[in-house]
Amino acid sequence: MATIQHPYLLFLGDAPDQLAAKTANGVKVWRPEWCIGQFRLPGCKADLGLPDVSIEEAAAQGAKTVILGVANRGGFIPESWIVELVKALGLGMDIASGLHTKITAIPSLKDAAERNGRKLFDVRHPSRDYPVASGKPRPGKRLLTVGTDVSVGKMFTTLAIEKEMRARGLNADFRATGQTGIFIAGEGASIDAVIADFISGCVETLAPANSEDHWDLIEGQGSLYNVSYSGVTLGLIHGAQADALVMCHEIGRPHMRGLPDYPVPEIPTAMDTILHMAKMVNEDVKFVGVSLNTSNVSADEAAAFKAKTAEQTGLPVVDPLKDGVAPIVDRLLAG
Amino acid sequence: MATIQHPYLLFLGDAPDQLAAKTANGVKVWRPEWCIGQFRLPGCKADLGLPDVSIEEAAAQGAKTVILGVANRGGFIPESWIVELVKALGLGMDIASGLHTKITAIPSLKDAAERNGRKLFDVRHPSRDYPVASGKPRPGKRLLTVGTDVSVGKMFTTLAIEKEMRARGLNADFRATGQTGIFIAGEGASIDAVIADFISGCVETLAPANSEDHWDLIEGQGSLYNVSYSGVTLGLIHGAQADALVMCHEIGRPHMRGLPDYPVPEIPTAMDTILHMAKMVNEDVKFVGVSLNTSNVSADEAAAFKAKTAEQTGLPVVDPLKDGVAPIVDRLLAG
Repeated sequence: MATIQHPYLLFLGDAPDQLAAKTANGVKVWRPEWCIGQFRLPGCKADLGLPDVSIEEAAAQGAKTVILGVANRGGFIPESWIVELVKALGLGMDIASGLHTKITAIPSLKDAAERNGRKLFDVRHPSRDYPVASGKPRPGKRLLTVGTDVSVGKMFTTLAIEKEMRARGLNADFRATGQTGIFIAGEGASIDAVIADFISGCVETLAPANSEDHWDLIEGQGSLYNVSYSGVTLGLIHGAQADALVMCHEIGRPHMRGLPDYPVPEIPTAMDTILHMAKMVNEDVKFVGVSLNTSNVSADEAAAFKAKTAEQTGLPVVDPLKDGVAPIVDRLLAG
Repeated sequence: MATIQHPYLLFLGDAPDQLAAKTANGVKVWRPEWCIGQFRLPGCKADLGLPDVSIEEAAAQGAKTVILGVANRGGFIPESWIVELVKALGLGMDIASGLHTKITAIPSLKDAAERNGRKLFDVRHPSRDYPVASGKPRPGKRLLTVGTDVSVGKMFTTLAIEKEMRARGLNADFRATGQTGIFIAGEGASIDAVIADFISGCVETLAPANSEDHWDLIEGQGSLYNVSYSGVTLGLIHGAQADALVMCHEIGRPHMRGLPDYPVPEIPTAMDTILHMAKMVNEDVKFVGVSLNTSNVSADEAAAFKAKTAEQTGLPVVDPLKDGVAPIVDRLLAG
């Protein structure tokens, strides 16, 4: 995929609530310096706290790409959005969409993009073919976030580690494997939309050979224990050839997301399984930390859970939102 | 996918050697009663030992589908094939292709199929969407073949078990997950070509709820240890919710196929890993046999390896080609 150019205009359309703009919010949180403003239509119920700007104002302020980081209703893109998007293309902006609906399949957008020499990105859909994974060892260091389940903070943790490492002057790049991450990185691939045979090959492409002092920080997806998506996760683990793993977990989740019959595994149990599979591609891989989402429990419960996990694993245990990830980076660098 | 209708005409075209017709040969071996004959063009170097028939003769003998079970050179379908395939469509036959090249993307074939109300099947490419796996327990019994690597005899073993079970009057169906298997079953899905998020969901669809005395015999693909394709294999394991597993292995393979740096795992080691992952979806799953491809070693070596494996695993160990699979079916039924 070509790189998505910033600065961005975050297009919220007529989002029915704040949650519908979750992706755009992630971009604003992690790349505020890339975000010129938000564009809202009448009836929009989401607000990212950014300046409201029109398409024309965004263009005048130098926006390079309109980010469709919002859920659309009923799986189609309303005409009221199309009018504005065509205007943006005419004013020299590209459009990058995180919708399931492909903007590249909408004739009026495709025509306007061609007419104006602009690009359309459908980041949920792979725009290229990937090779079969070679499994060959490659230089450079790689960290992968893994989890007991989906949606436990893997992207957040990976980005926090990038921020911490860069603040220390280290050579580190976040590698995006999902739509929000792609907007934040400006590039990447939605690994869950790749053809099954090429999952690991896609990861080898996203995190290729690099200099020995460079860290690729690869955004994990799914879980070996979430049996709806476990194939994606194993492909990620085997393509990543990680040197370091960070375990992510949400305290208090009653069962695996979307799988009421499946209990969430204990952290040490899941770590054993993941390490066993990860060692197939790198015998020296190890865990360097545990990242907890503690938002569902009291401060006391969180503290007790952290202490127990630290004792069970011998690793730094943090809530990245509240504690930061410095102890994990310390452990990573301790080697 | 709709069912591919038989009887079949096996189209060999101008196959450069016998190996190029490997898929067609698999169909002939396992479904001889479905194969009216073979169609060969001048220069064809493959021979399945079936009667040579023209398209017209095949139609007159009642062939319902032309099977393109042959490798094409350079990734395109020559005009000499197209002429014959258009003729077949005109005479009332469908076409089912196992080529990477999509026949549904060739205008002259697409037009001729529409004109004649015939079907085109690209069995390497999914023709429908699959749901995300639910992971819910479902009635009916399922057996899955797994392996230390790719191409170790999983399809052969699964089909041999189907044959043995049916000969005993048992209620068992082979479920195809690859192109040759699909021709043999008349239906199925090339699991490695499915979008990553839907691997397990595809398997749940291929082997759905069934009566309690029914066995689905699911064709395995890849290996958890073949890091190029391991995501496909884990998705299969988690979608299958197998009650019984059969371990497949080729004696004497020097390293993992396509991965010179990766040793082939020991059978007991691989079985432990596979069982650990399979238990996530069915706590009661167990191995019921080991199936060996012994073609690379002497009879003495094969016998010694079998004896050692039987001792290590406590399971029936067979070369399905030479010994049949009756001991595995005995163990399966012993429960």
